[in-house]
Amino acid sequence: MSEKGSVVIDLKFERRDVDRALSGALSGRKVLHASDKAADLSSASYAFLWKPDLDLFERAPKLKVLFSGGAGVDSILATPGLPNIPIVRFVDESLTTRMSEWVVLQCLSHLRQAPAYLVQQRARFWKELHQPEAKDLTVGVMGLGVLGQDSARKLKIMGFNVIGWSRTKKAIEGIDTYDASQLDAFLGRTDILVGLLPLTGETRGIFNGSLFSRLRQNGALGAPVFINAGRGGSQVEKDLIAALDAKTLGGASLDVFEHEPLSPDSRFWSMDNVIVTPHAASASDVRALLRNAEVQMGRFERGEPLQHVVDRTTGY
Amino acid sequence: MSEKGSVVIDLKFERRDVDRALSGALSGRKVLHASDKAADLSSASYAFLWKPDLDLFERAPKLKVLFSGGAGVDSILATPGLPNIPIVRFVDESLTTRMSEWVVLQCLSHLRQAPAYLVQQRARFWKELHQPEAKDLTVGVMGLGVLGQDSARKLKIMGFNVIGWSRTKKAIEGIDTYDASQLDAFLGRTDILVGLLPLTGETRGIFNGSLFSRLRQNGALGAPVFINAGRGGSQVEKDLIAALDAKTLGGASLDVFEHEPLSPDSRFWSMDNVIVTPHAASASDVRALLRNAEVQMGRFERGEPLQHVVDRTTGY
Ligand SMILES: NC(=O)c1ccc[n+]([C@@H]2O[C@H](COP(=O)([O-])OP(=O)(O)OC[C@H]3O[C@@H](n4cnc5c(N)ncnc54)[C@H](OP(=O)(O)O)[C@@H]3O)[C@@H](O)[C@H]2O)c1
Ligand SMILES: NC(=O)c1ccc[n+]([C@@H]2O[C@H](COP(=O)([O-])OP(=O)(O)OC[C@H]3O[C@@H](n4cnc5c(N)ncnc54)[C@H](OP(=O)(O)O)[C@@H]3O)[C@@H](O)[C@H]2O)c1
Repeated sequence: MSEKGSVVIDLKFERRDVDRALSGALSGRKVLHASDKAADLSSASYAFLWKPDLDLFERAPKLKVLFSGGAGVDSILATPGLPNIPIVRFVDESLTTRMSEWVVLQCLSHLRQAPAYLVQQRARFWKELHQPEAKDLTVGVMGLGVLGQDSARKLKIMGFNVIGWSRTKKAIEGIDTYDASQLDAFLGRTDILVGLLPLTGETRGIFNGSLFSRLRQNGALGAPVFINAGRGGSQVEKDLIAALDAKTLGGASLDVFEHEPLSPDSRFWSMDNVIVTPHAASASDVRALLRNAEVQMGRFERGEPLQHVVDRTTGY
Repeated sequence: MSEKGSVVIDLKFERRDVDRALSGALSGRKVLHASDKAADLSSASYAFLWKPDLDLFERAPKLKVLFSGGAGVDSILATPGLPNIPIVRFVDESLTTRMSEWVVLQCLSHLRQAPAYLVQQRARFWKELHQPEAKDLTVGVMGLGVLGQDSARKLKIMGFNVIGWSRTKKAIEGIDTYDASQLDAFLGRTDILVGLLPLTGETRGIFNGSLFSRLRQNGALGAPVFINAGRGGSQVEKDLIAALDAKTLGGASLDVFEHEPLSPDSRFWSMDNVIVTPHAASASDVRALLRNAEVQMGRFERGEPLQHVVDRTTGY
């Protein structure tokens, strides 16, 4: 029986959460912390990474597999000195469910005019607003991966028309799908745009003024709404603010930003029709992260193929 | 072929909406408006009622069936001089879908701490809050009628544990149900209480301090949440405010109130953890109302039994 490879943890999560998750996990494996500068990482086989230290790969030259602390791997792929070994990303049922909670919450908030009702509430003003229903609107989901597909399915059950867009065309029951080449047709039907794309060379800055102007105008909400929980690097914030000012967009929900934490100066904080959350749509649960990785290490050590491996050519 | 009975409209809805809905509807029937004080209603067979005029039943002594303008019939049943003829209530797919939109929105808002994130947003403060997930909570739905069952099913799909309570026990897949005698067992498991009860002698004032204190304490949200879209007469607002102040309740979403419109003096307007909407959870669509009634009039005139008839002994 082969010895179990040792593990380096280089997650910039709360240390308390990591320690709590480690108790009882990764049993039979030596666990080292990159933050412990005296630790000898030279024989470590696996690393858990989230915004890794720049000297990690020098200190741990024998790594065989990297585990991403999040579903998105854009920051890991941008790390200098990244060795050419498999990167397994974080795919987990809880992570998926939580993202769908956030996406459905945001779509319903805009459908049911929660921001406008809140303004009325603060003014102690009782007035029913004109109310389209979910079936009068089409939600367009950009990115039909693990997260996008689950959100799309749940939005459909809530009554929305749902369409989806992805690099390669998908077949999903009850949902019209479009591939990368059909972006305009997709946008022209979309009243609420949901971004669940990874950040790659192709998706950087994709949510810009030109794209916003191609969304369906004069839909049941009056103006389209933009919702993003993918990555902030995909949105051009000055275009977004201009579109909100010009009412090309009627509202937005943003969990991700070009620079995080969002600067206290940003106008997003104070716009009544913009809902801001602090990159909290779906936080990685460390316990689930370790549990999923344990499965992959087992596969790797038995010579089976790893799952959820990042494709370095597409960047996700 | 029997002649089609004539119809009186006594709906206190926007006249414009009623006129728009009437065009092309109730074809072959004479349509009279109770608001037209010169109109001769003496031979009318059917009446559409919502907060009817007090002289309606004197003016229209030959009514055979009454159609409620809303799903709830408490105000119609309280009308003086109400004749002893069938009352058909409004049951409609759109009405149901909209109510579920509102209920799921409110449950997700409290789960995902939308009120607390909004306070942070207004303070331009970036901080991730502790986040339970839907499966860590149990939503208890009081009232498993047309509306309660659809909400329960959708909450379940969003990942919540869902339990339900009704006068007579229901069997719903994936949902533990309780009958009227099992209220304490039901409340003791409930983290988010959703009220979708009709207002009757038995449900008046049911949401009171004693009931709030029997909800599960120390659940994943810290304190239970109260959501009501049934009728305001079922809630004791001074108890509700006291429970929020004492943190026996952690938050609330209210669409209905003891007195509507809600007084500008009410503390609910300004409580950060209370979401107020102006009896707008699910507005009746007049077009759908007429369409549904047309089906029932046809049944009645062919001698078939009416559907959705109110039971005057239970009061709903
Ligand atoms: N805010 C948060 O809390 C949070 C939490 C977790 C994840 N995220 C973000 O959500 C992203 C999506 O996660 P996931 O697990 O669903 O990823 P995934 O399974 O890898 O799916 C990515 C989807 O995006 C599509 N896509 C990628 N590049 C594209 C392009 N150039 N043009 C069109 N479509 C493209 C893919 O198309 P194909 O189907 O053709 O491959 C796929 O449908 C992550 O990358 C991460 O950035 C955010
Ligand atoms: N806020 C809004 O915009 C809005 C819109 C529409 C409706 N509503 C309100 O929502 C209410 C529910 O509508 P619905 O269509 O779902 O009504 P429904 O189909 O008549 O269902 C009523 C439910 O309440 C239960 N119930 C009644 N009295 C009870 C008691 N004393 N103890 C325990 N359970 C009791 C019934 O039990 P059984 O199953 O045993 O009969 C049934 O499950 C309406 O009456 C109306 O007041 C509000």
